[in-house]
Amino acid sequence: MKGFDIHSALKRTSKKFGKAPGTLEYTGDYKAEPTSIIMYSFDTESFSENEVDDVQKLKRELPKGKVNWIRLHGFRDIPKIRQIGQIFDINSLVLEDALNPYQRAKVEDMGNYLYITLKVFEGGKTLHDINAHQMNIILMDNCVITLNEAREPYLDLILDRIKRSEGRIRGKGHDYFVNAVVDLIVDSYFIVLEGISDNLENLEKKLREKDVKDFVGSVYDLRRLLTSVRRAIWPIRDIVAYLDSGASKLVSDEIKFYIKDIYDHIMHLIETVESLRDVTASLLDLHMTDLSNRMNEIMKMLTIISTLFIPLTFIVGVYGMNFKYMPELDVRWAYPVVWLVMIIIAGLMLLFFKKKDWI
Amino acid sequence: MKGFDIHSALKRTSKKFGKAPGTLEYTGDYKAEPTSIIMYSFDTESFSENEVDDVQKLKRELPKGKVNWIRLHGFRDIPKIRQIGQIFDINSLVLEDALNPYQRAKVEDMGNYLYITLKVFEGGKTLHDINAHQMNIILMDNCVITLNEAREPYLDLILDRIKRSEGRIRGKGHDYFVNAVVDLIVDSYFIVLEGISDNLENLEKKLREKDVKDFVGSVYDLRRLLTSVRRAIWPIRDIVAYLDSGASKLVSDEIKFYIKDIYDHIMHLIETVESLRDVTASLLDLHMTDLSNRMNEIMKMLTIISTLFIPLTFIVGVYGMNFKYMPELDVRWAYPVVWLVMIIIAGLMLLFFKKKDWI
Amino acid sequence: MKGFDIHSALKRTSKKFGKAPGTLEYTGDYKAEPTSIIMYSFDTESFSENEVDDVQKLKRELPKGKVNWIRLHGFRDIPKIRQIGQIFDINSLVLEDALNPYQRAKVEDMGNYLYITLKVFEGGKTLHDINAHQMNIILMDNCVITLNEAREPYLDLILDRIKRSEGRIRGKGHDYFVNAVVDLIVDSYFIVLEGISDNLENLEKKLREKDVKDFVGSVYDLRRLLTSVRRAIWPIRDIVAYLDSGASKLVSDEIKFYIKDIYDHIMHLIETVESLRDVTASLLDLHMTDLSNRMNEIMKMLTIISTLFIPLTFIVGVYGMNFKYMPELDVRWAYPVVWLVMIIIAGLMLLFFKKKDWI
Amino acid sequence: MKGFDIHSALKRTSKKFGKAPGTLEYTGDYKAEPTSIIMYSFDTESFSENEVDDVQKLKRELPKGKVNWIRLHGFRDIPKIRQIGQIFDINSLVLEDALNPYQRAKVEDMGNYLYITLKVFEGGKTLHDINAHQMNIILMDNCVITLNEAREPYLDLILDRIKRSEGRIRGKGHDYFVNAVVDLIVDSYFIVLEGISDNLENLEKKLREKDVKDFVGSVYDLRRLLTSVRRAIWPIRDIVAYLDSGASKLVSDEIKFYIKDIYDHIMHLIETVESLRDVTASLLDLHMTDLSNRMNEIMKMLTIISTLFIPLTFIVGVYGMNFKYMPELDVRWAYPVVWLVMIIIAGLMLLFFKKKDWI
Amino acid sequence: MKGFDIHSALKRTSKKFGKAPGTLEYTGDYKAEPTSIIMYSFDTESFSENEVDDVQKLKRELPKGKVNWIRLHGFRDIPKIRQIGQIFDINSLVLEDALNPYQRAKVEDMGNYLYITLKVFEGGKTLHDINAHQMNIILMDNCVITLNEAREPYLDLILDRIKRSEGRIRGKGHDYFVNAVVDLIVDSYFIVLEGISDNLENLEKKLREKDVKDFVGSVYDLRRLLTSVRRAIWPIRDIVAYLDSGASKLVSDEIKFYIKDIYDHIMHLIETVESLRDVTASLLDLHMTDLSNRMNEIMKMLTIISTLFIPLTFIVGVYGMNFKYMPELDVRWAYPVVWLVMIIIAGLMLLFFKKKDWI
Ligand SMILES: [Mg+2]
Ligand SMILES: [Mg+2]
Ligand SMILES: [Mg+2]
Ligand SMILES: [Mg+2]
Ligand SMILES: [Mg+2]
Ligand SMILES: [Mg+2]
Ligand SMILES: [Mg+2]
Ligand SMILES: [Mg+2]
Ligand SMILES: [Mg+2]
Ligand SMILES: [Mg+2]
Ligand SMILES: [Mg+2]
Ligand SMILES: [Mg+2]
Ligand SMILES: [Mg+2]
Ligand SMILES: [Mg+2]
Ligand SMILES: [Mg+2]
Ligand SMILES: [Mg+2]
Ligand SMILES: [Mg+2]
Ligand SMILES: [Mg+2]
Ligand SMILES: [Mg+2]
Ligand SMILES: [Mg+2]
Ligand SMILES: [Mg+2]
Ligand SMILES: [Mg+2]
Ligand SMILES: [Mg+2]
Ligand SMILES: [Mg+2]
Ligand SMILES: [Mg+2]
Ligand SMILES: [Mg+2]
Ligand SMILES: [Mg+2]
Ligand SMILES: [Mg+2]
Ligand SMILES: [Mg+2]
Ligand SMILES: [Mg+2]
Ligand SMILES: [Mg+2]
Repeated sequence: MKGFDIHSALKRTSKKFGKAPGTLEYTGDYKAEPTSIIMYSFDTESFSENEVDDVQKLKRELPKGKVNWIRLHGFRDIPKIRQIGQIFDINSLVLEDALNPYQRAKVEDMGNYLYITLKVFEGGKTLHDINAHQMNIILMDNCVITLNEAREPYLDLILDRIKRSEGRIRGKGHDYFVNAVVDLIVDSYFIVLEGISDNLENLEKKLREKDVKDFVGSVYDLRRLLTSVRRAIWPIRDIVAYLDSGASKLVSDEIKFYIKDIYDHIMHLIETVESLRDVTASLLDLHMTDLSNRMNEIMKMLTIISTLFIPLTFIVGVYGMNFKYMPELDVRWAYPVVWLVMIIIAGLMLLFFKKKDWI
Repeated sequence: MKGFDIHSALKRTSKKFGKAPGTLEYTGDYKAEPTSIIMYSFDTESFSENEVDDVQKLKRELPKGKVNWIRLHGFRDIPKIRQIGQIFDINSLVLEDALNPYQRAKVEDMGNYLYITLKVFEGGKTLHDINAHQMNIILMDNCVITLNEAREPYLDLILDRIKRSEGRIRGKGHDYFVNAVVDLIVDSYFIVLEGISDNLENLEKKLREKDVKDFVGSVYDLRRLLTSVRRAIWPIRDIVAYLDSGASKLVSDEIKFYIKDIYDHIMHLIETVESLRDVTASLLDLHMTDLSNRMNEIMKMLTIISTLFIPLTFIVGVYGMNFKYMPELDVRWAYPVVWLVMIIIAGLMLLFFKKKDWI
Repeated sequence: MKGFDIHSALKRTSKKFGKAPGTLEYTGDYKAEPTSIIMYSFDTESFSENEVDDVQKLKRELPKGKVNWIRLHGFRDIPKIRQIGQIFDINSLVLEDALNPYQRAKVEDMGNYLYITLKVFEGGKTLHDINAHQMNIILMDNCVITLNEAREPYLDLILDRIKRSEGRIRGKGHDYFVNAVVDLIVDSYFIVLEGISDNLENLEKKLREKDVKDFVGSVYDLRRLLTSVRRAIWPIRDIVAYLDSGASKLVSDEIKFYIKDIYDHIMHLIETVESLRDVTASLLDLHMTDLSNRMNEIMKMLTIISTLFIPLTFIVGVYGMNFKYMPELDVRWAYPVVWLVMIIIAGLMLLFFKKKDWI
Repeated sequence: MKGFDIHSALKRTSKKFGKAPGTLEYTGDYKAEPTSIIMYSFDTESFSENEVDDVQKLKRELPKGKVNWIRLHGFRDIPKIRQIGQIFDINSLVLEDALNPYQRAKVEDMGNYLYITLKVFEGGKTLHDINAHQMNIILMDNCVITLNEAREPYLDLILDRIKRSEGRIRGKGHDYFVNAVVDLIVDSYFIVLEGISDNLENLEKKLREKDVKDFVGSVYDLRRLLTSVRRAIWPIRDIVAYLDSGASKLVSDEIKFYIKDIYDHIMHLIETVESLRDVTASLLDLHMTDLSNRMNEIMKMLTIISTLFIPLTFIVGVYGMNFKYMPELDVRWAYPVVWLVMIIIAGLMLLFFKKKDWI
Repeated sequence: MKGFDIHSALKRTSKKFGKAPGTLEYTGDYKAEPTSIIMYSFDTESFSENEVDDVQKLKRELPKGKVNWIRLHGFRDIPKIRQIGQIFDINSLVLEDALNPYQRAKVEDMGNYLYITLKVFEGGKTLHDINAHQMNIILMDNCVITLNEAREPYLDLILDRIKRSEGRIRGKGHDYFVNAVVDLIVDSYFIVLEGISDNLENLEKKLREKDVKDFVGSVYDLRRLLTSVRRAIWPIRDIVAYLDSGASKLVSDEIKFYIKDIYDHIMHLIETVESLRDVTASLLDLHMTDLSNRMNEIMKMLTIISTLFIPLTFIVGVYGMNFKYMPELDVRWAYPVVWLVMIIIAGLMLLFFKKKDWI
């Protein structure tokens, strides 16, 4: 669970103690990768892709009437990132957040641009392989800048869709492009939740089959994961609500319905996450009661056997004593009588257990 | 529990990962049925029912002053559904949601039409047979379109009422028709809750009769069902509140009281669902304490018998030893004295248990 | 607990499935009683009481400047009730709710009249005898109509007060009359809560005296009752808040302070109900810990006795063996040495238990 | 815990069932004391104190430009209290509340006067001696009336401060006087909470020293007390917020900061009460886990000893049998071999326990 | 945990009972240190530092256009603090709060100045060494006054940054200086949370390795610490929200983004604190289930061994009896038959346990 574990997050964050706000520094898990900047420009007719060397020039020559996407990844070259900040007039507080891979999801309306940051979940084969990356999006009126620790596969998916001219993505503005990215990320949460849900279903099945090896540990792990996912999802509601509010002129009315669609997904995610938490709690309750039930059964067994034989063992012990003068020992029918007495005692005991509903 | 289980919902939803928003695709459990479109038109005097072939023509020739209900079911023919969307100018995001049988309940005000979607519960003989269907309603100023995976029996109930001219349904507008459908669906929730309530009552009775076979598993299942129903009900409050708010001119003031009536039902449902959750929690507590009580009783039994006889068995063991020189063995009254000592010890033990209130 | 049990409520409500909204039907527990209508008119000087036969005439001849109270009870004659609805222009949705003895408490502002409905608790000797009736009040500008399943004793209390000219009730308007009825009903909740509180105090006392027969069952019953009462009380806050809001001109400013007084009572009830719920939860915790404590004590007893005697019994068993060649058996001081060894072992055990703080 | 126990409160309140609102009646625990009225007038220069006989005259001759405090205590003389109500034009609903020692804390803005009522806690030596009195304050523009069941020591504290001319109390208006009284009362809550906190600290210490006699009962009592204090504190937030809101012209802007200071105290109290509730819950959890841990230890002891010796006892039992033909008995080295076998068995058992980490 | 423990806080607070509001008194844990006042003035060009003797003169000669920071620490000289209050026109209620080391965090807008108070956590080597100090900041338009019990190391950190001209701190106004102090304090919370998180991670690891010595006590301590930190953090959200609201002209628009940055940190802290609480709860659940599981295992062991050997021991006891007439004893093949019978019984028992899945 790289990239959103609560313990690591605290370790990274506390490393920055005492620094002035706005100090640029990469605090992530990756060895900072070399910084690469690619510029994509597209509209319904054309599509171009260029490696960017001179950022200054890039800013001056941004094509009009096209969607311009500046894709930066790799945080090794901090001075270059600072330079981009200066050229595009991006507040250093924003860049500080962008370099922090444990930044909580949020939107900041900085007036002439919007800064959106949220977690992307990259599913592995198993739940333990799940990684979270930080996605940073800066929406300006003439371009969108994305910043990532490493080349983000999710953005490649979007890029494919652009190249294949799929959906509306080439015919709409910068705001629609941002909407498409956020929509894709939100969709990725369903996959993580599906993984958790599958695991829970599995645990439930095992529990019904009394196969409880590692049960509690697994529930605990899923709960931890759910808590992390939950912490990632809830703030996105506020992001999308802000985009929908019409407070920023960078988001046009035209894409209102697309934002509402994402909002609907977020609500679905939130309800699902809460339901899954419910399920884990119920599973634990089920397990606890099950344990108690089995303990009852075990103790009943012990009690029945002990209660049945301990008195009898005492009786035979009595007649194993070696006293010289024990008149019973010489009586001829004493032995069968002792057996009779013992059988009667055992019978009464069994009746008692029957009445108690123990057998 | 087809159609609203949380695990299936996640599976279906995550299948659509990476698709552009507004991509039409049926993701339900049914093999997509053939698409059928029927058009009903009625007012207080007349009623007509026609199979629709040419949707284009249908749109042009919608009767004025009547309630026009276009009933589509079966999602096999996606192109036809897309065509209807184009002809009636319905956003593809709306159609995407309509084709998603796990869509959460909501209302979307798209300006010239309202899109309402919610779950319908179809009760089976037992709780395990309960199915949920997705009901999709599009309210326009000159028609209502309903979209369902399969022919929906609840709509046939409404149709019957229309044919029998029962209630106000033929004399009022499109909004009243939608209101009648929603009212019927909301009523269906009471039946599901009644089923859960019956089961809980039953479990409670069994618990009081100490018949606890499968108790915890049953509570767990009911709780899962309650969580699902709860998730279906809560969002309807927002739907009805929106309809009542007067924000859309498609809902006339005239039916305000009918909407308020549904709102009242929803509040009743919500309070009931929360109370039933309370009841399940209480039942589990009751069961757990019961288990502890029984364990106490069992252990008391074991302890009394063991504590009583183990020391006595030791004593008789002592005099079963075969040492040559054990002076007591030759004493004449030793045997009765040992009996006396043992009876006194047992008596004291019993007094002690009495004082402890164990017997 | 007739009249507000959650299971019965669901049974009755689901019976109406598929009916058009506004369908009049009595769904209560009583065999519907014959319908009786009495008309009381009073002001500071006069008081009259008349059986009503001709409702049409009644409406035309309502005395001006007096408080006119039309008291209907018994729901056998549905057509008559429908007729009253038509004559007084009461929405059939309102009458539908009035005939539903499980209707949740609410106020509906229908413009020219207010419809208020809430539960009345009629205390029996014990908690199991508590009944709940539905009180329905329609406040118009020239009369108040009350509708009840059966002749409501609480209204007779009000009637007495009117006849005895007690309090302000004869000198004020229709709104004050309604206020007096609601105040009386709210007061009745204190009596039910007092009953629950007495029971809880009793259970607590028993618990401290270790008398726990049926303890958990009783707590469970009280909790169920509390849940029902809670469900009855909370919505009244909204009713009273609405009356206080000044939104309806049928409620004059003059009685504002009386409404605030009821609101204060409701808040008191709500806080009390929540506290009582807290108390039940605490009692259960107390009981559970108590059970665990007692189990510990029982097991300690068993463990001490077993651990003490089982090794000793083994030792005496050894010398009870019948091997030919057991040199110890012939040693003269062997028997006392075995005793010594056993006493030392027992002593060490006891020291160990002492150190463990078990004895 | 006289004066705010939830059970007593319900008993008193339900006694008033059926009375018209505004019926004056004292329902407290004290035998109603004789009614005494004292009038204090003061400003920075002067201070006077007079027993009041003629209330009529008192009202006419209230000194201008001074703080006039009419202090009534003892509720035996209901007619006199009613008379004061008439002379000062106080609503009978307010007087009814003032006479109810279980009235919940609240402020009522009656237009020309404010009615404030809250609980005063009078700390005893131990928590069981804590009493709660009801403080009733009526703030008018030319006087303040306080009403108490009995002479209130807290008001004597204020009186002392006035006589000693301490703080600002003599140089400010009626509102500051009321503020000083409320501030003193709020301070009294800290003392009660300190008592509870001391007790909890003590219980925690005992728990760590495994001294758990009466532990659960004590936690339960503290929790009950906390619930009561909590119920007393929360509504005061609303009172102080109302005073701070500027809605009443009887509270001048000048004392705004003093009210904010009280508000800050209330918030502190609320946070503390919630934290203390948390602490009690944690202590119970700690205790429960502790009990389970000790049970584990006890059972481990029993299991080790039993498992070790029961098989051995069986073996020695075998060779204690008296069969004629038991070849082993005559073998010379049989006895040492049996010992060897038993030692090996015991050793293996001990290894097993070691592996299980039980010893 | 000096300086923010709930028990100490209550002790200190209740000491002030009965004092008029605004009474200056130091109630902290430190022996009040000698009062020292230092004045720092700085802008981008200059920096000066002076011990202050004459406060009167200080006020008159505050440099214009510079940031003037008056740093007071040590609360021994109450009259001097009162004098500063008079000279700078600071309300005595504010000074009272500043002298209270258990004051909850808050902002008070006193019109011409803002008073901000919050806790500073000073991390020790272990969690038990954590101290909390109270930081008091008064922001005026021409100076900032800080008041601390003792020389605050965190302010020395800021001072260093000023001297080294690091960040923006010398080029901005008084509001930015206050912002920098609050930012530093908020950062300190991450370090405390990191400490708690490390401890929890450690406990989790130990739990998985079944090393549970002191487990519950440690969880309890962490939970107490979390509760305290939580109580410290939550109110800061309101402080920062107020600063961001633009309600005070003392906070310029220019630093809006810096305040938003702190707000973001606070939200992160709150979410983290809640998640850590979740983790402690989950750990306890994990431990409890683990205990139950181990108990089950222990009891299974006991039950298997007892159930296996107790009946057999009874059988051998039977043939250890010394009756004269026991025909079996003389039968030649009796001894092997008894062995056979015992082996069969044991075998059946083992099969039974196998079926029960106990072995
Ligand atoms: Mg920072
Ligand atoms: Mg969280
Ligand atoms: Mg969150
Ligand atoms: Mg749980
Ligand atoms: Mg989408
Ligand atoms: Mg999507
Ligand atoms: Mg959608
Ligand atoms: Mg309906
Ligand atoms: Mg849910
Ligand atoms: Mg929901
Ligand atoms: Mg209705
Ligand atoms: Mg539970
Ligand atoms: Mg209905
Ligand atoms: Mg009343
Ligand atoms: Mg409820
Ligand atoms: Mg409710
Ligand atoms: Mg009152
Ligand atoms: Mg519970
Ligand atoms: Mg609890
Ligand atoms: Mg009353
Ligand atoms: Mg104070
Ligand atoms: Mg409470
Ligand atoms: Mg409260
Ligand atoms: Mg203060
Ligand atoms: Mg707990
Ligand atoms: Mg104060
Ligand atoms: Mg910062
Ligand atoms: Mg707290
Ligand atoms: Mg808090
Ligand atoms: Mg930041
Ligand atoms: Mg828990």
